[in-house]
Order: sequence, then C-alpha cells, then structure tokens
Amino acid sequence: MQSVHIVSAYDEELKFLTKRIAAMGGHAERMVEQAVAALVNADPGLAQKVIQDDIVLDEAQREIDDKAIIIIARRQPMATDLREIVGAIRISADIERVGDLGKNIAKRVAAVIDGRQPSSLFRGLEALANLALTQLKEVLDVYASRSVEKIGFVRDRDDQIDAMYTSLFRELLTYMMEDPRNITPCTHLLFCAKNIERIGDHATNIAETIYYIVTGDQMPADRPKGDKTDQVVLPGPVSAK
Amino acid sequence: MQSVHIVSAYDEELKFLTKRIAAMGGHAERMVEQAVAALVNADPGLAQKVIQDDIVLDEAQREIDDKAIIIIARRQPMATDLREIVGAIRISADIERVGDLGKNIAKRVAAVIDGRQPSSLFRGLEALANLALTQLKEVLDVYASRSVEKIGFVRDRDDQIDAMYTSLFRELLTYMMEDPRNITPCTHLLFCAKNIERIGDHATNIAETIYYIVTGDQMPADRPKGDKTDQVVLPGPVSAK
Repeated sequence: MQSVHIVSAYDEELKFLTKRIAAMGGHAERMVEQAVAALVNADPGLAQKVIQDDIVLDEAQREIDDKAIIIIARRQPMATDLREIVGAIRISADIERVGDLGKNIAKRVAAVIDGRQPSSLFRGLEALANLALTQLKEVLDVYASRSVEKIGFVRDRDDQIDAMYTSLFRELLTYMMEDPRNITPCTHLLFCAKNIERIGDHATNIAETIYYIVTGDQMPADRPKGDKTDQVVLPGPVSAK
Repeated sequence: MQSVHIVSAYDEELKFLTKRIAAMGGHAERMVEQAVAALVNADPGLAQKVIQDDIVLDEAQREIDDKAIIIIARRQPMATDLREIVGAIRISADIERVGDLGKNIAKRVAAVIDGRQPSSLFRGLEALANLALTQLKEVLDVYASRSVEKIGFVRDRDDQIDAMYTSLFRELLTYMMEDPRNITPCTHLLFCAKNIERIGDHATNIAETIYYIVTGDQMPADRPKGDKTDQVVLPGPVSAK
C-alpha cells in the first residue's frame, strides 16, 4: 500500500507540472490576444489589464521551478521523468517570455493611439498574431497529448510566420517613408510585429523541448532561426511628400 | 577509497559545467564585441565570422543540458548541488541567447553599410554595447567566484543601460524623421540597439540565477524589466526636408 501511495503521489506531482504549464499557456495566449486587440482597437484600458496580468506568469514560473527542484530532490527520478521535469522548467520559461512579449505589445498601445495608421497594417498584425497563437496553441496541445509524431507542422508554420513578418516589415518601412509623422507609431508597430514573430520562435522552442521529453533526442535538422528581415533594404523614400 | 573517488569524479562533473559556462560566456562576449565592431567599421567579413561562430554556443548549450541531466540521474544530488546544476541549464540558455542577439546584429551589417549614418549613432551603439558587455562580464565573474554579495551593481547598471538605450532610440527616430533615406538603416540600428539592451536583460537574468544557486531564494524586489522606450512618442518630423 505504502509503495502504491508513494507512486501515485509522485504521479500527481508530475501531473501538477503539466497542468500548471497548460494553465500558463492559456494565460499567455489570452495576454497576447488581448494585447493585439488593445492595439487594433486603440483600447488603453485593455492594454493596462494585460500589463497587470503579466505577474501571474512570473509567479507561475517560479512555482513550477521550485516544485520541479523539490520533485527532483525528493523523488530522484530516472531518465524519462527527469526529462519531463527539466522540460517543464524550460517550457515554463518560454511561456513566461511569451507573456513578456504580450505585455510589451500592450505597453506600446499608448504610443500608437494618436497617429492612426492604415487599417491594413493592423489587419496584418492581427493575421501575424493569429498565426503565431495558432502555432503556440497547437504546440501546447502536442504537449498535453505527447503526440510528438504530429510535430511536423511546426517548421512549416514557422516559415509562414517569417514570410508574413517580412512582408509586414516592408509595409511598415514603406509607410514610414511616405510621411515622417508615421515614423514614431510605425516604429512601435515594427517592435510589436517583431514581438509576435518571437512568440512563434518560443512556440518552436517548446516543440523542440517536447520532442526531447518524449524521445530523449534533439529535434533533427537545423531550423532557420529568427526572422529574415535583417537584410531588408528598401530603395529610398517611396514618396517624398 | 571508492567513495573518495566517486565524490571527486562528481566534483569534476560539477566543475565541468562551471568551466563550460565560463567558456560559453567568453565566446558570447567576443561575438557581441565583434558584431558591434563589424557594424561600426562596416566590415562584412567580420560580420560573417560572427554569424558562423554562433553554432559553437548552440552546441555548447546542448552539451551542458545533456551533461546536466546525466549528472542529476547518476548522482541524485541534493539541494545545493541540484540548484547548481539546474542553474547551469538556465545560465547556458541565457548565454546562448546573447550569442543569437550578437549574430542578429552581425546579420544587419549588410543592410546598414550603404546608408552611412552619423558617427554619433555608432558611438552611441558602441557605448551601449560596452555597458551591456561589462554587465555580462561582471555577472560571469560573480558566477565564477560565487561572491553573490557583490551582485548589487546589477540593478544600477541595468538602469544605466535602459537610460542610454532610450536616448539612442530617440536619436535614431530623429534621424529617420530628418531624411526618409535614413529610415531603412536606422530601423536596423534600432533593432541592433534593442538587441544590445536585451543582452543587459540576459545578464540580469544570469545574476538572478546565481543568487538563486547560492542562496536558494529568488533575488528580492521587482526589477523593472525591459526598456522604457515603449511609450516614446516624438512630435512629428524634426525637419521636413
């Protein structure tokens, strides 16, 4: 009986980590959704809510880290369980960072509100955010189900996110060149776009961690990390007005 | 004899992690230094070297992760050693990210080379990089010596980095408003500045991890994370030429 009790308590501890990460993931997704909504709808109240919400993820990450260390020390887990626990530490760090990026978008709402930009820019940002959030959601679904064989979608969607980010980057530079009054708001929108692109990178990191948890191996093949805009040069001003 | 042998091999394993992290730190510092030098001196050859150098950090991080897991599984370490090992996993992730940021600066060299910007901008970027690299170096010194009581400098220098980044951010926006031809190169310089500011954040993360390794506690008090430029709004074009 004692041994059954111990094993079951241990399982509960591992399940606690998984559940806590699922909750963190949901919270981070909501923060990013609301930050982008606050940006698109010029809603400083919603932006403020997102900024305040970030502390929840900071605390959850600390809790997961502390719990993970306690489980390792108490249970002295072997290979698979150890990967599970160390994986939880890594994934919660990625999710916490996604929350930071959402908060950073929310903090830029005030700077963008006055200079109204073309709605196509906001639609572009929304589309990019949807793609990155879908990536994050599906990666967290794979974490919940451990169905690592489904993880192939990650690289393809990563490429889509990069392509959409590059096109938005060019569009923003073009607006900045058209009218100097666009420079400040479009710079903040550039950083928002970059933040969203980074969320996609964190989703990919999480996918790599899940692959490692399940298989014990690193995910094969070099994925081209990061965006492709670092070489973008636009030819002078589009319009000199 | 056997037990002495085992303990000493264990100590060697822990020392291996510390040494490997010191080497990673030195490598990342060099990458960032050279990336900024490539930017300031318009040296695409040096930029290319930095881009190629990044793989060293990726491999070192994997090696530390794998080794850490093996040590935990084999030695079943208790509290302090466990914090040491989990801390090594965290710190190597921060250093790997510093290398990524250096690589990203190097990748922007080509896009900045044609539109020569005022030398004050490059001096500003160099000064910011020096400050962030000093922060990183001193934090890694604290890691090597475990002299956690010296860690107070981190917050002050973090504030200096933020202040210098904010001033550079404003200066870059001003140049963009002066002449639309500055927009593309200055946007890339903005991202370079942001990358350097992030290096400071990673140094602070590492300081927090060291504090945790040594004391078992989280570093007290909320530090104001990230930059303060998210609210910066410049009043229209400085010059409409």
